[in-house]
Amino acid sequence: MSGRLSIIGLGPGDDRYLTPEARDALEAADALYGYGPYLDRVPEREGQPRYPSGNREERKRSEAALRHAADGAQVAIVSGGDPGVFAMAAAVCGEIERGPETWRAVDVVVVPGITAMLAVAARVGAPLGHDFCAISLSDNLKPWPVIEKRLDAAASGGFVIAFYNPISVARPWQLGEAFARLLRHLAPSTPVVFGRAIGRADEAVTITTLDQAAATKADMATLILVGSPQTRLIAREGRAPLVYTPREAAEVTA
Amino acid sequence: MSGRLSIIGLGPGDDRYLTPEARDALEAADALYGYGPYLDRVPEREGQPRYPSGNREERKRSEAALRHAADGAQVAIVSGGDPGVFAMAAAVCGEIERGPETWRAVDVVVVPGITAMLAVAARVGAPLGHDFCAISLSDNLKPWPVIEKRLDAAASGGFVIAFYNPISVARPWQLGEAFARLLRHLAPSTPVVFGRAIGRADEAVTITTLDQAAATKADMATLILVGSPQTRLIAREGRAPLVYTPREAAEVTA
Repeated sequence: MSGRLSIIGLGPGDDRYLTPEARDALEAADALYGYGPYLDRVPEREGQPRYPSGNREERKRSEAALRHAADGAQVAIVSGGDPGVFAMAAAVCGEIERGPETWRAVDVVVVPGITAMLAVAARVGAPLGHDFCAISLSDNLKPWPVIEKRLDAAASGGFVIAFYNPISVARPWQLGEAFARLLRHLAPSTPVVFGRAIGRADEAVTITTLDQAAATKADMATLILVGSPQTRLIAREGRAPLVYTPREAAEVTA
Repeated sequence: MSGRLSIIGLGPGDDRYLTPEARDALEAADALYGYGPYLDRVPEREGQPRYPSGNREERKRSEAALRHAADGAQVAIVSGGDPGVFAMAAAVCGEIERGPETWRAVDVVVVPGITAMLAVAARVGAPLGHDFCAISLSDNLKPWPVIEKRLDAAASGGFVIAFYNPISVARPWQLGEAFARLLRHLAPSTPVVFGRAIGRADEAVTITTLDQAAATKADMATLILVGSPQTRLIAREGRAPLVYTPREAAEVTA
């Protein structure tokens, strides 16, 4: 008998973003798999073993969880944010595609979560108020020229852009290159938002402009929003400005 | 004394997607504003009046809520899905930008929610597993040529595409035109997902291909995902196929 594999989005930060569906799915699981720091966010339960793994072991983690579920267990993989956005759901699908036929009999359930770009956008106003895109800046699995082509398409098309996986020790130059590339299409004054560790004690949000955006201000926990030609600030006395992209689009200016 | 305006995302469908942060913000409000069907999802509370309005009255609703909050009240506007994605957060920002100085003193809090594309993606696997964009097909506030340019940019850039506001009685032809436009760039076999009323009793999800995608199958409550050249299906005996976009991108094929 085949079991179930739930891939559960915890949302960013703390439990304020954990949906009832995710909470119930966590309670129902026979065993939990996941990147260690995400598992640490879930309360331990008697009789519910947990199997932490490193943040570059998505394939091994998926395989182990699928093997366990194929034996008949109710297994869960936890993911930060939304598991469908640059996260575990695609990794699991990849292993099912490559794996034994029995894995296709596993009941796969994806439980959505608040993804980082929604949480960062909420902190500053409505930067995603109109057409937008999400781009992973990791070139571990796609060549850099593909990313450059997508940056050009997104900026010239008038999309607001969210950068996931902006920078890491192994990928130190890509974010700076991406900002430079966008300056070919967008005004230096284009609003840029750095949102780090939303919902955690060390949360930090910075609003700047494209010409002042410094890649060194980002780390692995940072989500970056780059405005479209329509995105603008609303100044407020004694408060941070609101960043918003109006619903009206008169023209594509890029 | 200025009050607070919370713009709260309920997520799609029923309460399984309502975050603890949203639940708490609903409880704390002195009054609720919103599109009638969204307000109907919130339990009535003694002493918490509610002011329903039509789905094309975003500006009037924003004005009324801002005026109320500027008088010192804790006011909430409820939104389906995420309020920052083609929804009330940008409408409120627009009124603050145009409105009296006192509205800039209102404490604006955006509470994120699960947006429709995440919920639809979760139902079918991991179609948003790699770079993607979200486009509103409404040409009420932007000219159709802007939408065409964005369709071209998104498809030729290799993005998965989510369509919000795909069709309405007043906008009957735009979705069909969009599918035809995408066929200039994408293979006829490109996977397309129609997701309707996710989390509600009348939920319906259909997986088809770009050449078979019929605009008549969509309505105002439908979110549509169009795959990239990398998006594919995993066949499963006795189950719906999984739709997924792998994390690996070898090239831009468009």
